[in-house]
Amino acid sequence: MKKVVTIGGGTGRFTLLLGLKKHPVDISAIVAMSDNGGSTGRLRDELGVLPPGDIRQCLIALSGSALTMRKLMGYRFEKGGLAGHNFGNILISTLEKITGSLEASLRIVGTILNIKGRVIPVTTDNVELIAQLQNGKTIRGEDALDHYKLLSRVGVKDMYLKPRAHANPRALKAIREADLLVVGPGDIYTSLIPNFLVGGISEAFVKSKAKKVYVANLMNLIGHTDNFSVADYVDVLEEVIGKRGVFDTVVCNTRKPSPALLKKYKKEGTPVVCDMERLTGRNVEHADVLASGIATIAKGDTLRRVLIRHDSEKLAKVLVDLLHKKK
Amino acid sequence: MKKVVTIGGGTGRFTLLLGLKKHPVDISAIVAMSDNGGSTGRLRDELGVLPPGDIRQCLIALSGSALTMRKLMGYRFEKGGLAGHNFGNILISTLEKITGSLEASLRIVGTILNIKGRVIPVTTDNVELIAQLQNGKTIRGEDALDHYKLLSRVGVKDMYLKPRAHANPRALKAIREADLLVVGPGDIYTSLIPNFLVGGISEAFVKSKAKKVYVANLMNLIGHTDNFSVADYVDVLEEVIGKRGVFDTVVCNTRKPSPALLKKYKKEGTPVVCDMERLTGRNVEHADVLASGIATIAKGDTLRRVLIRHDSEKLAKVLVDLLHKKK
Repeated sequence: MKKVVTIGGGTGRFTLLLGLKKHPVDISAIVAMSDNGGSTGRLRDELGVLPPGDIRQCLIALSGSALTMRKLMGYRFEKGGLAGHNFGNILISTLEKITGSLEASLRIVGTILNIKGRVIPVTTDNVELIAQLQNGKTIRGEDALDHYKLLSRVGVKDMYLKPRAHANPRALKAIREADLLVVGPGDIYTSLIPNFLVGGISEAFVKSKAKKVYVANLMNLIGHTDNFSVADYVDVLEEVIGKRGVFDTVVCNTRKPSPALLKKYKKEGTPVVCDMERLTGRNVEHADVLASGIATIAKGDTLRRVLIRHDSEKLAKVLVDLLHKKK
Repeated sequence: MKKVVTIGGGTGRFTLLLGLKKHPVDISAIVAMSDNGGSTGRLRDELGVLPPGDIRQCLIALSGSALTMRKLMGYRFEKGGLAGHNFGNILISTLEKITGSLEASLRIVGTILNIKGRVIPVTTDNVELIAQLQNGKTIRGEDALDHYKLLSRVGVKDMYLKPRAHANPRALKAIREADLLVVGPGDIYTSLIPNFLVGGISEAFVKSKAKKVYVANLMNLIGHTDNFSVADYVDVLEEVIGKRGVFDTVVCNTRKPSPALLKKYKKEGTPVVCDMERLTGRNVEHADVLASGIATIAKGDTLRRVLIRHDSEKLAKVLVDLLHKKK
């Protein structure tokens, strides 16, 4: 079975995994470990565990269990001392406490949820994401970065993890053996880059013989990536990874949301434009990967999320087709 | 397979179930639903669920799962917003929220924990335990009653559930079909009596053709049952059940804790004395059912618990032997 490795985050990656799960491919979802917001941040602080939130989303997406179990994992408490927590986060973190390892916890939860493929923390070191801005300011923690709205204006000078993190050997193995490496969708600063800041990941990514695909986001995030084109995203990522031209393929959405929708949701940001002239030399897959309608956001969700989303089946099909295409 | 139904609570019943599980008998654990203390009370208040705590203990006792799963269910959080909660309580309550029914939640958790037998809430009505005292005072809620230390001195006039509760049909069926009905061990006011206050339970208990056994506690609880003898417990229970002589058998422990132990743990209460002269007409099983050593209490456990405990294997053997004895 062909091996697909996804590096991404948030609802974009959730959507991608939901679609990929329906194809006969071997899926590994690599998860950044710098989240410190919301329920995840509280569990990290109070229990001293690694961040469970993004892991939980991947597990739910890959689950073959009955609906009740998936609902259980995603259940968000609204009242009292548990308010803001997701049940799945509590489960993952409690099992980490009991077994002494996040990896052991994931094996158990993976079995309970009957997941297809595997979810791999990019590192099992306890890290904080740091961003140094062009104006000399330092932003500590992914949550603070997520909510910092002047990023586009000020500019990012450097990003790193503190302390320096070592790659999970399972992540390196998955990248090494992949047939297709998919980066995105996901917020570039808080979901994508934190993976490549882990020691060894960028090098393994560059060396891997896999086809390397960047799936462009549909919308720019206000304050983070205002007016970014697809090539801007690719440039920033390749600078972090340390190799210009490492992405051989880029997936660009062709079906723009309707003007009425864009107007209604203009605080969401503007559509990402596919600037072909700056993508020459790469395979650009133009495809309609837009979901119909508008997503909903769970009550109490504290992350900034985009409501205009990818369609899981369309996006998965584009990627699976790439597996069978000659380089 | 012979059918054993236990009505009890707390660690006494937990111990009993651990022992019974090793015998080829069909076990039903009926659980009182009036607990409103600690983690259970907070979940009831905040999520509007039925009390999960005693149910959790029975599920763990009957579980055939790996140690990690049993540890998970019993895991008690010590810090932050989750402090005081048991993971198992959160699981049972969240599944009740998702499925809309405690019974559906128990089916799922029972499967995850691979339990032997079944755990049956005595009622699925949302009730509060009320005690009216001889001095005119009213105590509302099981937790307040548990911590009220003048009960022996003042005396209980009446106890009831508010609102009136209907029996769970599964509890009635289990009682009707039982070969052996075991009441105790467990605190008489907070674990045993609340079961018989549910409409239909006492009547079904009286009517059942099962052998009916009362397992005496080892120790009196200071402020609740000071200087109670075994016959005092039987009298109080039979008054609530409404039929004098309904217990055909009483199990009395013969091996007293050592004087040194009793002195050290005198704030635990005094040993329950088996006053044979008041138990005439009943089968009294004298047996060494005392555990060696002293139990430990989980940090942060807010219930009053006795440290001198039954031995699970000895107690189970006495009861299973009763199954094969002629009435």
